[in-house]
This record gives sequence, structure tokens and C-alpha cells, in this order.
Amino acid sequence: MTDTPATDRPALSDLERGTPFVDRHVGPRPAELDTMLATIGAASLDELAAAAVPDSIRDTEPVPSSLPPAATESEVLAELRALAARNTVTVPMIGLGYSGTVTPPVIRRHVLENPAWYTAYTPYQPEISQGRLEALLTFQTVVADLTGLPVAGASLLDEATAAAEAMTLLRRAGRSRSPRFVVDADTLPQTLDVLRTRAEPLGIELVVADLGEGLPEGELFGLLLSYPGASGVVRDPSALIEAAHERGALAAVAADLLALTLLTPPGELGADAVVGTTQRFGVPLGFGGPHAGYLSVHEKHARQLPGRLVGMSRDADGNPALRLALQTREQHIRREKATSNICTAQVLLAVVAACYAVYHGPDGLRRIAERAHRMAAVLAAGLRAGGVEVVHDAFFDTVQVRVPGRAEGIADAAHAAGIALRRVDADTLGIACSELTTVGHLVSVWSAFGVDADASALDRETADALPTALGRTSEYLTHPVFHEHRSETSLMRWLRRLADADLALDRTMIPLGSCTMKLNAAVEMEPITWPAFADLHPFAPEADAAGSLELIADLERWLAELTGYAAVSLQPNAGSQGELAGLLAIAAYHRSRGEAHRDVCLIPASAHGTNAASAVMAGMRVVVVATAPTGDVDLDDLHAKIAEHGEALAALMITYPSTHGVFEARVREVCDAVHAAGGQVYVDGANLNALVGLARPGAFGGDVSHLNLHKTFCIPHGGGGPGVGPVAVAEHLAPFLPGRGEVGAVSAAPHGSPGVLPISWAYVRLMGTEGLRRATLTAVAAANYVAARLREHYPVLYAGAEGHVAHECILDLRAISKETGVTIDDVAKRLADYGIHAPTMSFPVAGTLMVEPTESEDLAEIDRFIDAMIGIRKEIERVAAGEWPVTDNPLRGAPHTAACLVDKWDHPYTREIAAYPTGGTPGVHDRKVWPPVRRIEGAYGDRNLVCSCPPVEAYSA
Amino acid sequence: MTDTPATDRPALSDLERGTPFVDRHVGPRPAELDTMLATIGAASLDELAAAAVPDSIRDTEPVPSSLPPAATESEVLAELRALAARNTVTVPMIGLGYSGTVTPPVIRRHVLENPAWYTAYTPYQPEISQGRLEALLTFQTVVADLTGLPVAGASLLDEATAAAEAMTLLRRAGRSRSPRFVVDADTLPQTLDVLRTRAEPLGIELVVADLGEGLPEGELFGLLLSYPGASGVVRDPSALIEAAHERGALAAVAADLLALTLLTPPGELGADAVVGTTQRFGVPLGFGGPHAGYLSVHEKHARQLPGRLVGMSRDADGNPALRLALQTREQHIRREKATSNICTAQVLLAVVAACYAVYHGPDGLRRIAERAHRMAAVLAAGLRAGGVEVVHDAFFDTVQVRVPGRAEGIADAAHAAGIALRRVDADTLGIACSELTTVGHLVSVWSAFGVDADASALDRETADALPTALGRTSEYLTHPVFHEHRSETSLMRWLRRLADADLALDRTMIPLGSCTMKLNAAVEMEPITWPAFADLHPFAPEADAAGSLELIADLERWLAELTGYAAVSLQPNAGSQGELAGLLAIAAYHRSRGEAHRDVCLIPASAHGTNAASAVMAGMRVVVVATAPTGDVDLDDLHAKIAEHGEALAALMITYPSTHGVFEARVREVCDAVHAAGGQVYVDGANLNALVGLARPGAFGGDVSHLNLHKTFCIPHGGGGPGVGPVAVAEHLAPFLPGRGEVGAVSAAPHGSPGVLPISWAYVRLMGTEGLRRATLTAVAAANYVAARLREHYPVLYAGAEGHVAHECILDLRAISKETGVTIDDVAKRLADYGIHAPTMSFPVAGTLMVEPTESEDLAEIDRFIDAMIGIRKEIERVAAGEWPVTDNPLRGAPHTAACLVDKWDHPYTREIAAYPTGGTPGVHDRKVWPPVRRIEGAYGDRNLVCSCPPVEAYSA
Repeated sequence: MTDTPATDRPALSDLERGTPFVDRHVGPRPAELDTMLATIGAASLDELAAAAVPDSIRDTEPVPSSLPPAATESEVLAELRALAARNTVTVPMIGLGYSGTVTPPVIRRHVLENPAWYTAYTPYQPEISQGRLEALLTFQTVVADLTGLPVAGASLLDEATAAAEAMTLLRRAGRSRSPRFVVDADTLPQTLDVLRTRAEPLGIELVVADLGEGLPEGELFGLLLSYPGASGVVRDPSALIEAAHERGALAAVAADLLALTLLTPPGELGADAVVGTTQRFGVPLGFGGPHAGYLSVHEKHARQLPGRLVGMSRDADGNPALRLALQTREQHIRREKATSNICTAQVLLAVVAACYAVYHGPDGLRRIAERAHRMAAVLAAGLRAGGVEVVHDAFFDTVQVRVPGRAEGIADAAHAAGIALRRVDADTLGIACSELTTVGHLVSVWSAFGVDADASALDRETADALPTALGRTSEYLTHPVFHEHRSETSLMRWLRRLADADLALDRTMIPLGSCTMKLNAAVEMEPITWPAFADLHPFAPEADAAGSLELIADLERWLAELTGYAAVSLQPNAGSQGELAGLLAIAAYHRSRGEAHRDVCLIPASAHGTNAASAVMAGMRVVVVATAPTGDVDLDDLHAKIAEHGEALAALMITYPSTHGVFEARVREVCDAVHAAGGQVYVDGANLNALVGLARPGAFGGDVSHLNLHKTFCIPHGGGGPGVGPVAVAEHLAPFLPGRGEVGAVSAAPHGSPGVLPISWAYVRLMGTEGLRRATLTAVAAANYVAARLREHYPVLYAGAEGHVAHECILDLRAISKETGVTIDDVAKRLADYGIHAPTMSFPVAGTLMVEPTESEDLAEIDRFIDAMIGIRKEIERVAAGEWPVTDNPLRGAPHTAACLVDKWDHPYTREIAAYPTGGTPGVHDRKVWPPVRRIEGAYGDRNLVCSCPPVEAYSA
Repeated sequence: MTDTPATDRPALSDLERGTPFVDRHVGPRPAELDTMLATIGAASLDELAAAAVPDSIRDTEPVPSSLPPAATESEVLAELRALAARNTVTVPMIGLGYSGTVTPPVIRRHVLENPAWYTAYTPYQPEISQGRLEALLTFQTVVADLTGLPVAGASLLDEATAAAEAMTLLRRAGRSRSPRFVVDADTLPQTLDVLRTRAEPLGIELVVADLGEGLPEGELFGLLLSYPGASGVVRDPSALIEAAHERGALAAVAADLLALTLLTPPGELGADAVVGTTQRFGVPLGFGGPHAGYLSVHEKHARQLPGRLVGMSRDADGNPALRLALQTREQHIRREKATSNICTAQVLLAVVAACYAVYHGPDGLRRIAERAHRMAAVLAAGLRAGGVEVVHDAFFDTVQVRVPGRAEGIADAAHAAGIALRRVDADTLGIACSELTTVGHLVSVWSAFGVDADASALDRETADALPTALGRTSEYLTHPVFHEHRSETSLMRWLRRLADADLALDRTMIPLGSCTMKLNAAVEMEPITWPAFADLHPFAPEADAAGSLELIADLERWLAELTGYAAVSLQPNAGSQGELAGLLAIAAYHRSRGEAHRDVCLIPASAHGTNAASAVMAGMRVVVVATAPTGDVDLDDLHAKIAEHGEALAALMITYPSTHGVFEARVREVCDAVHAAGGQVYVDGANLNALVGLARPGAFGGDVSHLNLHKTFCIPHGGGGPGVGPVAVAEHLAPFLPGRGEVGAVSAAPHGSPGVLPISWAYVRLMGTEGLRRATLTAVAAANYVAARLREHYPVLYAGAEGHVAHECILDLRAISKETGVTIDDVAKRLADYGIHAPTMSFPVAGTLMVEPTESEDLAEIDRFIDAMIGIRKEIERVAAGEWPVTDNPLRGAPHTAACLVDKWDHPYTREIAAYPTGGTPGVHDRKVWPPVRRIEGAYGDRNLVCSCPPVEAYSA
């Protein structure tokens, strides 16, 4: 009808594409970006890239990539559904530390699918993290109560790495100087594998022994028992623990937490430490992870505990408040003196496990345990009656049977009936029962064995298969929290109340330098709770996991291309584990070339503390390279250190862009120098969010990198985990990736935490290479905009050659603090009054704040942060001018709770300034968020360690 | 190993069952229930049932039921997955008012799957409902802007009922006395069907005419045009509108909201009203619903608008605040004088549509419209080139083609390629394009026609198919809200901020009498967003909907059995529509027996106003029956009225238990009297939550009932809709259910709102008959517990024979108000300061509060409410004692915002009393929720009606 010429209209093919996802992922609209660029003084993103990123490393041509063009959200969901459809979910009776479990829908919806929980950061700002701290305290209480040891951390990465942490803990906590660590042969194979990987570089001699006849001869520093064993057998560990103690060694027990509702806890049997997984507390199998490992110890070992520990303290008003306790243990402070490189925890999954215990309570958990046990007992009775040899008489939920020559055939028959069994060897099968097991499953399993049995009759006739002497007599989960939220309504409200206490990405930007708190899009999150991804057992037959394996292969390939490396392993389930895997690859490579003597690892002074900790764990000696006044690596010192260590040089670890948030111009020179001396270059991928699409570490000199999928690739931080830390290597290092023969496993599950990999897969697929590049440039523009606007108010520390920062900037408050007495703590806590989460404090430079806005924040939100920082600067001026005393002003008083405003008010500033520093906006446009507690005293809590749920009276301050 | 005798253990079959869902649905734990029963003075739930429910109606034996025993959450999800798998989702190119659309995942997750949105109630307490009021104001702005008429309501039930509402609106708003309403023959068939149903009892003469040659001769009061038509054609409606105006009639236009981004809006073409659906604004098809219908009118007709209208007003501090405007129009006030029986809206879906517009903005919407249009233009060009006759030259997104004798074959071929077309007749097909249409789909459609075409080439050659003269020139969606939230991060935070302003079930009990705000369990909610249920077109071939049809059949059967009726129709998509359907069935039944003269409907004085409004709409005369001082129906008056109206008696409408919350002892007598006089008994199912499993209306005298699935059967209230109001009838009325031949349709889609039916299906399946009975008894116990504890503080109005209430109780504040000047408004608003949603105000008795705790609240929460009411009673005493003036006390000042506390404080009560009446609890245990605004003045806003988004300056008070 109209005669518009065709050229005036968008083409059909353009219209068909819809709104590109990158336009949703990236915050600033085009006009906003123009404002930002104008402030920075750049004409375009490309010009900014040319100015900020050194020519020597910048990709100027599109890099060949197998990544298809960006897809829409609908297309990506369809592709993921197709992949999911290629998985076959069977009834998981494989065991091996991974059990069928029901994630209560109320927990799935209100935790796993709720951004208030999954987009939160690690609770380093405890005043605005009380909700997840309380959930973690509950988790610790569950572990402590069930294991019978009073101090339990806020989760570890998985059971295998928890066992490795226990091994090193026993070594440093005990008195023995022996290098021997004895491990029960009936330990989960993946735990043995990780223990081997971790023992070797530390000089620990691992002795795997059948402990049926007691401890092997000789000295030992520690012992690890399984309770029940991997075979399912339940044996009383007391005598072995006593024997170990008699020889001056300490003992750890790997225990099934659910079994401990029925069995005497290891803590009551003399164990010094207990480790395991909480997966079966409602956490989906996820083809191996993520889920929360646990480790509990005696009080006397509390200060030896790796990872995070939540403890109670008090706030400025004297009210009880939670925060991370004993922080002095953390690797970011101890660096090469650290005893573990664990940074992250598995908070989101620990929260799920805690909620599961709260929802079921002690009686509910016991009943679930009884179900698993009775199913196993009746299953065994039926098999015995059918002439099948059941190996053990005492077991909890797992039955091992000997069927000479028939194992494969029986397992195949069960699989045909939709049930997966454990194929131990050609003559042996394992069958694990769980919360999912039904009488129907028993019948199917019997049928696969050619057995016909009557479950009801057997149930009446068959006694329990747990040793009577080991029956649990002590109470557990007696705290009211395990009794008050047993209806869905009550649990839902408890979860909302906890979530409301925390400031997560769904309410404010979280400009944490180095942490990259960007959008975790709903479309990326949806697939992780689909049953086809969530309910897959890590040791399911390969054919059952075809879709997940393809997804993993895609993601490994895409990540390799984006980083310029030849191969990637997704096995490391945290950045720290990726780092360790990378360094182990370097060490193995040198060894393979007859250069095992290369053991010096150069690390710049500004590096993440984890670098040093990982290097030590990989058996290397750490040598620090100085930082130049510009913040770059001091090249003179580098050359000097290389010369000094000569043939001993194993590797250099360098973060790029640097931890100072700067694209160092001479990074190629650095890499070349290390290579020339026979060393390998480890490029820490912590700051990859400033590189993707612009430059590739594997192309500018790196031999290996680890990435953080929970930073650059959109896996949410989950309140402090899950993380995923893939390791990427150049061709010559590919044979040394974890679990490929030359180097052992670094995580329990073959593919680490596949349960959350659909997130990163979706992100890359939605963005395409062009979109990823735009995200990177937008992130760089945002950081430079913050630097440009705040520079006149706070000195910005460090910049690149042309005065630009990379994707983050450091605000230097040292002089201000010195002059005025206002500390960075005051500023960080005051930001909470403004409704904004603080930037990173005192890293990499003490007394500074490091700001990373990321690409996902729009101009309005970035300006809100900048305006808050300017407002705070003006408040500091009033302190400096003597208008407010340094001990009583809105900064030192921060954060202010609503409750503190209704009390008597005798401060020299008004309530209005305290609570509404930018003025309030009536109605829903108001963004005021009230912190639930005032400033928390850390030291008080460390002096009075309380790390499980305290009696209710403790709250009546 | 142990020798525990088998009898000491729970049997395997018990263990297998896990925790019954009823234990999660019901709030009180056994010990709590004991406390409640002890307070009431009952030994057990059964004793309470015997005491509270009259013997004459109580089921004492289990009722035969086809409902299988209660299933676990996992089992129910598996069964629903199996049903979903039996649906076949094709690409929907059927049109007919239902379009393919993409629900942005960010909206799905943060609205449709977020209890803060879906568990909220209708915003009758505006101070704690500002979030959804703002979202609804945005919805109204979208409709007003796009249709070109300034006053748009906060949504209607669907397009067909919106058209019926427009019809009656034109009749009362216009000057014409003609009974004729002319409707374009090219109107959606389901709209025509509903118009017929609604016109007939009101004496409106419906003239369906091909308007190609102008208006039919003669007088008319109104006209309804379609723009575009059901056939897809776009014609300029101006001339017809003008012609109608010239004859003294008013004109309404049914318009496609998306098309209006490209077409001149009807408001600019002279229309008096515009109606339609907002489904294609991101609302899933859901096999027909729910989705939000819309109706916009000229300012001069604002007071004629049916349903809800959100408008701006101001609060006690003079700040802008939103609330429902012009409430005097509502049927609950006007009763038989009401002009519509519409109570609920479709708030949740209106919020989705508003978010969709906010997320896409005007440019994004226009681009989506262009996509649909260009796809249609190119599709038509290809068909024409292939020799297919395209009926219309001007169209938006729908192409009608004539293919003599070939329609079935082509539609089948397209279906085989995964695409559903509209089968108009044997010679005609309709093909509708949408946001989902791709070039690939065009190729498939062409191929089904045996046509081979090149989309790119055609795209270049083919002009637009919209009449140039109708191209839209006016701006729309210019308000900042449509430009500020275009990144996912920004939209997510906006949604969180709005949600935080509201008090929904995820933070507090909502003890609204008559509304039954009980748990909406996550497991019940999960399936509604599964693609197999969400993406099904209502006119898909039956075989494609096999799973949904089975689900509907199951639910109809179960509901019939639970209520004692013979048949149920799920078509009515709100309680009001169920009521109308029930009364139409009664009228048709009388007519079928030659007793068309029976037209008197007896209604007790205490009835819901909707009863009377529906009776009038069904063509009946309302006669009010008095209420006895006990609150029961006055039997003497009933007999007198029956005698008075004799042969004219059509029906009695009675609510059971009564709206006074009492099980009337003599209900059988009432029913018998009506039957004896030849009348039918309509039992309003509003209070069915007190009956399920105890007594069945169909068994104690009812001929027909409507149920509210959004009360008793767990469909969430969604902030004011969706509702589902099935009608249940005895055998003799079954032929008169809607859409079964004798009576026309009452809703647009054949099965109403199947998209939310999995919720009720899951609830019934999870509970089983025994669980449902326990829920009912627990609800009755909870209400009696509230009555028992509060009786000494507030008089409890009405009780049954043995002193018991049913599932709710009325607190009588009239004397207190009279003595002290403290109003029920003061009490209701003060509850918000306590963090609790107010009970129902002034229904059914002015000056009272009606409390319904439901079975889902545990004792702690019920006690929190009771303690708050007692606390308020003590505050009232202080007013009474003269300690606080009646004009300045914590009750009159309520609710208190945080902002009002930081200002100067010159009240005779403290800030602490204002904000923390029960004292604060530090940390996450604090339950303080801050209302975002203070008490809202309704009248101010009604005098200054602002019902679309105001300029931003309006917020700077």
C-alpha cells in the first residue's frame, strides 16, 4: 500500500534477529555511552581500546573462532533444551559419594532461583550480609552437630578437596614429623586421586592400606578413615583412631552426613577432623557439582581450619552480629605462608543444604536416613535370598555384591530398567539407596539380578544392618531454627527475611574491584535447575551424559579460542584449583623434560595472595618481584631475579591487566624474558573481563592461565561460591591438564561443577565474539569514566601509558585518612547508608578502594555510586574542618540501622544525614535499604569464638 | 545386626512415602494444633468439626472419589511432566487474538516466578501496595498511549469480556435509547460469542453486520469495530465511527495493541472506547489464558469504566501516592445497581505486559510490530507470486487466503512442518505472524502451499501492506519509565524495588476474610512456566493439547466430586464469570421447562455485592432477604419473600458458610423452601475453604455453585488476578454449562485460563481427600483460635449454634470507634506498622474487620497477628484515656514511613512507638517492614484524576 522504497526499511533478516542480548547484558544505552566517552575524552569504544590496550598485544583483526554468531535468548534456550534432551536421567544407585536427593521446590525457587541469594558476593561486608551469614552459621551447626566436632567451616569445594585440606591440617596441627599419611583403601576413588595429586608436591607420603588388620607398621602423621567406606561397609573406627593417637598421629574421618543421623558421630569416637559432602542434603547432583564439602574439627584446631568460618560477634550498639571469623587465616593475608589456597566456598549450595536441614529437622533427616537404610537392608536381604553374595553385613545405604563375571550384564539390565548401578569391576557391583529409592526400584534391581522377592515380607523379617554398638545416642539439631520452619510458608518467609538483610546485585551495583560483579541473566540461570542437567550422576555411563559432554566440549573449545590457548580443562571447581592445576602442569612439564629442578616461581608483589599459596602447594619456592612506582612489574628487578635463580626458574605468575587495574605496556617483554630463561609464564585470568575480544593471553606470551567463570563468564557469585576456575594451556602443556594421565585430579568430579556450566555456555552463545568484545570495551569505558569523574575528589592510583585504567580503578585514600582520621572502613560502611555495596578494600594496596563497575551497570547507577563517593568526600571535609569530631560523625557511625534512629539521638549530625545522605524520595522511587546491624567488631568475636547457632537468648542483647 | 523387632520400625512402605505434602501446606505443627484446640476447647479436629459443622450437612463417611491417594511433590512433578509431554507445541500462526510472543526471561523469573508479585492481594491497602500500583499505572499508560484514549483501567479479564463491558458502557454512557448494538462481522468469533451471551439477558439486540457497505439502517446505541479485523484486514474506521456518532450512538474499537505502534490509534479516529488484549505483550499463550484484557475510554466516560482504575493521590505528608481511584464504582458498593460484576482484574499478567513495554520501549515495540508486519507482507507476496489468492491488500500481521477445497490439506501439511494455521473454512485459511515468526517459518508455510519463494528478494520488492493514510504519527510511551530500564540489570532492580514496596504472603500473613490467602506452593507454581503448558495456543488442534485436556478433565471431575455436583466447567476465568454462568444456567433451565417467567433472585442482605450484580446481568430481578440478628438468613423473611414472588421465583443465592463466617444450622431448610417453590439454589462457593472434605454444597441442597480456585485451590491472587471461577452444577443443569450449546460462552477461551490450572491440579493431587479435609479443619481451628484469643479485646460478631465460627471471624469495632474515635482505618493502617497486612475491612458489616487466618499459617504467625491486635487495643485505650488526642496518636498517624521519623518529631508519642510497637529485634530476626508512603487521601485523587504515569516532577513533592 505504501510505496516506501525498500532501502528505507530494516531488512527482514535484521528484524528477525530481534533485540540482541548484548543490548540487555550491557548497561549503558548508546547515548549514555557517548556521555561516558566524552567524559573520558575518547571518540569511540574503538579509540578507547586503541588508547588503553597496548598495540603489542591488541588483536586488531577478528580472531578465527568456531563460535557461531550471537543467538537470541529463545534460540539459546532451544539449543540448551536440545542438549538437555540428549542426556538420559536414570535412578542414581551408583553411590560413590553422590546420592539421589530431593531438592524441595520451596528451596529451589526461593534460593537457587532467587537473585537475592545467587547474586550476592562473599560476605566481606558483614553488616549487609547478615542473611547469608546466618544461613552459613546454620550450615556450620548442621555439620558440627552431626559430626560431633564443634568447629565446622562455612563449606569447602567438595569431599575430595576437603579430604586433602584435612590431610594438610592434620600435618600442621599434629606433633608428628613423619611424612606418612595413611588412607583407608576403602576410600572413594576420586578422593584417593585428589589426595595423591595434593600429597606429592608437598612431600607427603601417601600410604593406601586395607585397614581391616589394623594400621600399617611405622610412623605416620595422620590417618583418614571412611565411615561408611566406599564399598558401603560400616566399621567402628575407634580402635584405628586410638592406634593413630598412640603413635602421635591425628585422625580424620570421611563421613556420610546423612548416615550420622543414625550412627555415633566420629567426634564421639575420637576423630580430630571429619570431612565429607553435603550434596545429599537437597543439592542436585549436577553431573558432579557444585555442592558444598565440609570439614569440622576440634576447638583446639579452629585456627588451623582452611576456608571460611562464620562466627558471632557484636555490633556498635552491642547487639549480636555475624561476620567471618579468624580472618587472619586467609591466604590473601598470609600469601606464601598460607596453608591452603582456598578462597571461595560453596555458599549457595551450603545454604541449600542448611535449608534442607531446617526444613526436615532432626526427625525428618532421621527418617530419610532410615528410608535409605531400610531400602538397602531389604535389597540385600532379597539378593541374599536369591543366592547373590552380599559382601558386607554392616552397611548404611550401599550394598556391595559379588557376581563373578556377571557384573556388566546385570548393570546393563538394570540400566535398561532405568537404574544406574556402580560397576566396581567385572565381578562386583555397588548399589546405593537414597531418599529417592522406592520399593519399585528394589524390584527392578532384583529383577536385573534374576531375583524375585517380596519387599513387604522381607521388610518384616529383616533386621537393620547397622552395628548396634554404633547406634547414635546423642541429640542433634536441637536449636529452634531446626524446628520453626517446617511448613513451606514459614520456610519461605525465613528465606525472604534472610535475603532482605543482604545487599546483592538485585538492589545495587557491587563495584568490587577484581571480582567482576556483572549481570547473571535469568536466561543463563534457568537451565541449571532443569532436571536433565540437575539430576545427572557424575559417574553415569557416558552415553547418558551426551548432552552435557557436548556442552562441556563446546565451552572448553570456545574458552580456548577466546584466550588463545590450545586446550582447556573445566575440572577445577574454583579459581584456586585452576591455579594449582596450572602450576602442576608447569611442574610436570619441566619434569617431563628432565628439568625437575626448576622450582622457583616469580610472583609480583602486587599479586593475589592465592598465587603464592598455590605455588607453595604445587611444590614451588616463591620469589617476589618488586613493583615499580608506576604499579607495573619492576623490569630491572625481574631481570635480576631471573638471573639470580637461573636454571631453577620454573615460572612467573602475572595477572593481566595487573591487579592495579592497568594494562602494562611491557607485558610481552616480561613474558619473553621468562621464556628466554627457560621458565613458563602463568597469566592469572582474574582480570580477563578487560581482555576478552581485545587480546588473548595465550597469544601474547602466556603458557597457562586459569579463568574465573564466576567473574568474566557470568556464573553468579552465590554469596561466596560456587566458582569455576578452568585452566587453559598452550599445546605443549595440554598433556598435563588435570586427570589426563600425567597429572592427577584436582577436583572430586571429572568435570568439576558441570551443574553451573550452562550459565557460561549460554552467555558466550548469546554474546558471540562481537558482543563479548563490546562487553569488554564497555567495562573499560565504565572504569575510566569512574576514574575521570572521581579523580578530582580522590587520587586515582596507577594508570596506563596514556593515562587510562583498564576495567577497574584504585581510589587512594591513604593521604585523606592520614589527614582526617577517616578510614577506608568508614567510607565502605558509609556507602551502605547510601544503599551501595562497598568496593574492594585494601587490595592490592592497603588503604585504598578498588572500583570495578563492569559493563552491566548503566550510567544512572554508575553516577549514583560516583555521587555517593563525592557526597562522602564532602562529609570527610566536614570532619577535616572540625565540624564533626573524628570519633562521632556520619562516617564513623556508619552504617546506621533504622532502630538506632528511633532511640535517643546525641550525635552532632542529624538523623536525616545519618539515614538519607542524598535526601529521600517518597514512595517506591526511594532506594533506601536499611542495614540490619551497625558496625561489627571483629576482634570481640575472635576472642569469644561462637561458630554454631547460639542459644536464642544470645539475641536478646 | 540389630535385632529390633520389625514392629518397632516404620514399615518400608511408610518410609517410602516421605513427608506428606499436607504437612508442608498446613502451618501448625501437631503440638501447635494442640495448643490451638485447647484454647478453643476442643479435644481434636474431629470434635471441632462435629461442634462447628451442622450434623444435617456434615459428611460423616468418606465420600467416594476418583482422586488417587495423596502424592509427593516429586511424584506430582513427574505426573505433570508426563501430561506436558502429551502436548505438542507448534509455531502458533493461528491468530484469532492470540499471538506468539516471547516472555523475556528476566520478566518470567522476577515476576511470574516471584512470590513477592504472585502472592500479593488486590491493592485495597494502598500504602503497602505501591509497587504493583505503580506497575498497573504503567500498564494503564501503555494502553492509554497506544489506543489514544486517556483513561484505561488496570485490566479486564480478556478481550471478549472487555468487549462485552464496552458494549454495556456505551449503552449507559450514550444518549441513545435504542437497544441495538451493531458489531462488525469481522470480529473475533469468541468475542461475538461472549457478546451474544451477555447481550441477551440485558435485552440488547445484537446486530452482526458486514460493515463494508456502511452501517446498517436504523437506530443503534453503539457500534463495535475491529482494527484490524479477525480476518486480518485493516480498514479506516473513521467513517463508520462518524456515522454512528451522527445517529447518536457511541463507537468502540477492538484493536490489536501491537498494531497501534504503526497505526493511527482509534482514539485519534474518534472512537469512544477501545478494547482488546495485552497477551502479545509477553504473556504466555497458556492454552487461552490468563492474560489481561484492556479497555480505555474518553475522560468523560472515566466514571463509567468497569473494573479497577489506579490513580494518583497524595499521602498524609503531601507526597504523591497511588491507590485505586473512583472506588465508588465498585460492585461491592453498588450491588444490584452495579453496571458490571467484574471484581478481579488480571494484575499479574498486566504487570507482565507493562514490564514488556518498559523493557522494549516504544522503539523496541515498534520494531517487533514491524517484524510481524513485514513477515506477513513478504508471506503474502510469496503466496501471491505462487498463484495463491490473498483476500486482503491491507493487513497488519495476518494474511487470509482463499484456497478452494484445499484448506484442510494445506493446514495439515503446515502442521506436519510444526506450524499451526487458522482453518477458517474448507476454502479459507488465516496465517498470523508475530514476534516469533522467522523466515524459516515463511518458507515452511510456502512449502505447505506448494509455493517456492525467495524471502530476501521478496523483502526488497514488497511494499508495506498498511494503508499509508493510517500510519501513526503521534508519539507514545514517552514517559521516562519506558526508557530507563532497558538493560536486564536495570529492569531486575526496578522490579525488586517495586516488589519491596508491597506486603505479600512472602513476608506476612494476609488474614483477609473471604479471600483465603493461603500457601501457593512452589511445586504448584513451577509447571505453569513450562513451555508445554505456557506456549499452547487456545485454538490449537485438539490432539496437540491432549495433556492439557486430560488435566482439565481430571480437575473438573475432582472438583465435581469434592463439591457434590455432577459437572463442572472451568471456562469462567473469574469468580464473577462463574457466578454469571451459574445464573445463566438457572435461567436457561427454567426457560427449557417453559418457565421463562421465573426471574426473581433472592439474595441475603449480607451477600457479596457481586451476587446482586451478576443476577442483574443474568436478567434477573434482585429481591433482598433480611438477615436475622444472629447473622443467619432470616427464615421468616425468606418464607415471606418466597410466598410474595411465587411463580416468579427463579433462584436463591446463598453463601455457605455465610459471609458472616458462620455455618448456618438451617441451610437445608433454606434450600428445601426454595426448591419447594420451584426455585433453584445457588450456593456461592466463596467460602468453600471451610467446606472441602466436610460437606458438599451439591449434597446439601445446592443446584449450582461457583468456586474460586484462587481461594480454596491455591491459585495465587497475583496482586489482584488471575482468578479462576469454575461453575459446578447438578445433573439437571449440566446441559446449561457455558459453551455447551444451550448457553453461550462467558470467556474468550474455551477453557478459560488453563495456563494456571496446573496449580489447582497439583494442589488437589498433593493433598488427596484426607489432606484436603485436614486443611479445612485446620483453617476452621485457626479462625476459632483467633476468635477465642481476641474475644476479650474485641467483640466477635456472629457465631454458630455451639459458639464456633467457621473459617473466619468478624471483629466488631463499631462500639470502640464510637467511644474513642479510633476508626477501623486507623487499626488497619496501624497493622502495617506492625508489619502485618490488614484483614478485610467493613465487609460484610461496616465498621468491622473480618479475619481469615487460613490453614497455612503456623501458630507463631497467628499469635503475632493476635498480639498486634491486642497491642493496638492497648493503644486505643490510651487514646480513650486521653493520653493521646484522637487526632494525633500512633493509630491515626499510621502507617509511619522511615522518612517521617528522621524529620522533626512533634507528636505526643515517641518515634519508637511509631515504628517499633512491639520493640525491635536486632539483625535478621527483625521483621520490621517499612511502608513506602503514609496514609493516602483517596478523595484528593478522585477530585484530581491522574491515571497514567505523571511527569517525573510530580514526584518531587
